[in-house]
Amino acid sequence: MTQISTKPPSGMRDFLASDLARRRHVIGVIQSVYESFGFVPLETPTIENLSTLLGKYGPEGDQLLYRLMHRREKLARVLEQGALKESDLSDEGLRYDLTVPLARVVANYRDLPAFYRRYQIQPVWRADRPAKGRFREFYQCDVDVTGTTAMVADAEVCAAVAGVLQKLGFADFTIHVNHRELLRALVSDAGIAPSAEGTALVAIDKLDKIGAEGVLKELQERGISAACGEALMGSLAAAKEVGFLEARAKDETKSGASGARALLELFALARETTAGAVLRFSPELARGLSYYTGPIFEITVPGLAGSLGGGGRYDGLIGMFTRAQIPAVGFSLGLERILLVMEEREMFPELAVGPQILVCRFPDVSAAEALRAASQLRAQGLRVELYPEADKLGKQLAYATTIGAQYAAVLGRVEVDGGAIALKNLATGEQRTISIEDVLKSL
Amino acid sequence: MTQISTKPPSGMRDFLASDLARRRHVIGVIQSVYESFGFVPLETPTIENLSTLLGKYGPEGDQLLYRLMHRREKLARVLEQGALKESDLSDEGLRYDLTVPLARVVANYRDLPAFYRRYQIQPVWRADRPAKGRFREFYQCDVDVTGTTAMVADAEVCAAVAGVLQKLGFADFTIHVNHRELLRALVSDAGIAPSAEGTALVAIDKLDKIGAEGVLKELQERGISAACGEALMGSLAAAKEVGFLEARAKDETKSGASGARALLELFALARETTAGAVLRFSPELARGLSYYTGPIFEITVPGLAGSLGGGGRYDGLIGMFTRAQIPAVGFSLGLERILLVMEEREMFPELAVGPQILVCRFPDVSAAEALRAASQLRAQGLRVELYPEADKLGKQLAYATTIGAQYAAVLGRVEVDGGAIALKNLATGEQRTISIEDVLKSL
Repeated sequence: MTQISTKPPSGMRDFLASDLARRRHVIGVIQSVYESFGFVPLETPTIENLSTLLGKYGPEGDQLLYRLMHRREKLARVLEQGALKESDLSDEGLRYDLTVPLARVVANYRDLPAFYRRYQIQPVWRADRPAKGRFREFYQCDVDVTGTTAMVADAEVCAAVAGVLQKLGFADFTIHVNHRELLRALVSDAGIAPSAEGTALVAIDKLDKIGAEGVLKELQERGISAACGEALMGSLAAAKEVGFLEARAKDETKSGASGARALLELFALARETTAGAVLRFSPELARGLSYYTGPIFEITVPGLAGSLGGGGRYDGLIGMFTRAQIPAVGFSLGLERILLVMEEREMFPELAVGPQILVCRFPDVSAAEALRAASQLRAQGLRVELYPEADKLGKQLAYATTIGAQYAAVLGRVEVDGGAIALKNLATGEQRTISIEDVLKSL
Repeated sequence: MTQISTKPPSGMRDFLASDLARRRHVIGVIQSVYESFGFVPLETPTIENLSTLLGKYGPEGDQLLYRLMHRREKLARVLEQGALKESDLSDEGLRYDLTVPLARVVANYRDLPAFYRRYQIQPVWRADRPAKGRFREFYQCDVDVTGTTAMVADAEVCAAVAGVLQKLGFADFTIHVNHRELLRALVSDAGIAPSAEGTALVAIDKLDKIGAEGVLKELQERGISAACGEALMGSLAAAKEVGFLEARAKDETKSGASGARALLELFALARETTAGAVLRFSPELARGLSYYTGPIFEITVPGLAGSLGGGGRYDGLIGMFTRAQIPAVGFSLGLERILLVMEEREMFPELAVGPQILVCRFPDVSAAEALRAASQLRAQGLRVELYPEADKLGKQLAYATTIGAQYAAVLGRVEVDGGAIALKNLATGEQRTISIEDVLKSL
């Protein structure tokens, strides 16, 4: 028999106990901060209809969807026909982000609060080429407010993610902010046709990676003239000058004035929150997703290529699922990136993993007697493992160290008959005999 | 534009905040009890290679696997060829249970403890026909011990699930226990050929659903003679007599003696644990899955058709992934069934959901001032929502009730200028003005 591969599939990971201790620590912090902002949890199914998913993420997104194949009779019928296309074989796929499922949920449940503030911490799947730090199954941690265009909602999602990162110990992150309307105005001011706007945004978004020269080159390759490209780079540079937003906000002759006003309001509101000191206007921030309509956000930290999270306002997306136009704004934190940076920077506190005590026994103590002692220790709320076999004590104690237990509870005839254990501190080697009901208090 | 369906796919569910409060309560209890038994967490990917999954669950299980379709170039190449089979189109599928991924993990990570005690609480997917209470995405909550044949491990997984159910408030559950070897001996004693053993087990497993007559009929339909069928029913009835296990354990002329001895040992060990009073020998318990080799378990409660969980010893499964034969025993609790019974019996404690306080404001207070007050309350650790728009106060207070907030913090000019809030208890209507930094202590 050929051996079956025991590795997880490409781009997938197993999480052992020490990984999960770190993941749960971060998720716990995110959850508690999101809840302090009055967000309530939502979980949506792993599997969504393709009609829900397709056409929301742009053509590249559609390509990266995991699709589930028809089964049994339905598959057999299709296979019989021959001359197949991808769409003949599947009508369900895996969740690709948490925003589109939220839009579906808001459209579906009419009795949700008018301002539905939900958080959602779940994995998503993208059939991207795996690379270092890029996985095909990864967690997103989203907060969104639906039902209002008030800029205070935008300020609150920024404050919530800033609060998370601060509580995790990040002191040097920046939330870059831009506005889609303002960005479109700059593109249009540069003489770039509306039809080329998407192309221009994709190129601009790479400014921090490939520099101004690179962006100019890419714009030309994509059919935007050097003159327009240089005009655009010029207005992006000008937008970085102090006072740009204030001037633009007042200048009703130019488009983008209301976008500039929205950003000024956002900055003023954010000053009242945890996000006050970390928000920065970044006119070149474009964000890939096509559904954004207002402010857009992205978080960077020094030393990390890419971002810890991003978001923005998407007042049109929910309307793709229901006749009512329901505005919304949200922010998504990337769990894997946060973990990566926290590991590199050694930001984790000491986290308890595994049993505190291993119960060991001498040959004159039965398995039943050892199990009784373990039960008594567990009833005290202690995390207790029982060595299952009748091995030599030295082997049992070595095993206790292997699993990272802090103590071994050694049972000999004398201890069992006296309702006691010999409690050995595995770090110091110190050992003392304690009545079994006193173990918890004595630790 | 046709409206996209906003429902989740068939057999899938959205979980809103009140659902999640109950799910998290139960998962929290399971996690804490499993950890008290020294089990450590594991999470495996949603997607597994089909080579890992196929052939482990029997032919019916293989049918119910969700398979992911090849993508892009790989799919295009296959579609070009024509005359396709299911296996041409897919080599990955969704996790079907938590036991097979555990077996893969134990085979893959050689530095795991010799006795790897892991718990795993994750969803699994089965493309079964959806029905009331039967979903296509559902959570399993597994504990397993690998690396030992010592019966104390079997006792401990039983004790762990018993401890969970007791902590959740169940007082009337039974853990039915049988032994595959003993069951096979009874089948063989009845003159049923080894080749028909599987068929016989499937029929026996339905005894509690279709009764003795039904089982006899099914046995005959499946080609087992009436005489053999009646002999089998006779020995199952005889096995229920007091003293059967003791007699069988001593009778080395009959097969199944070592199975009987194992069960007697298991019962003796379990007496030292939380499982002591709830274990019962049930000779007709068969369990569907083919990989069990020793003791098998199933939990029932009065009023529930089906079980709250099940498990058993599977000493051969891990060997399908690695040359070393590694014995194992485990138990799986079904989260959805537990929730169903707890809801029917109203067993949930009061669970906190959503914000404690809604911040509201009069028109003479700005959004920024309201946001500042919300930030100050959140800094105290309170769960606080901010009403985002400048609506009439009555509307804001009505909304506070809608979202289930206990308090409204009402801000007028006087309160803001005095660093205070008017805190209104929404249940009693009582209202008092408090300095904003004293809110937490005053609640």
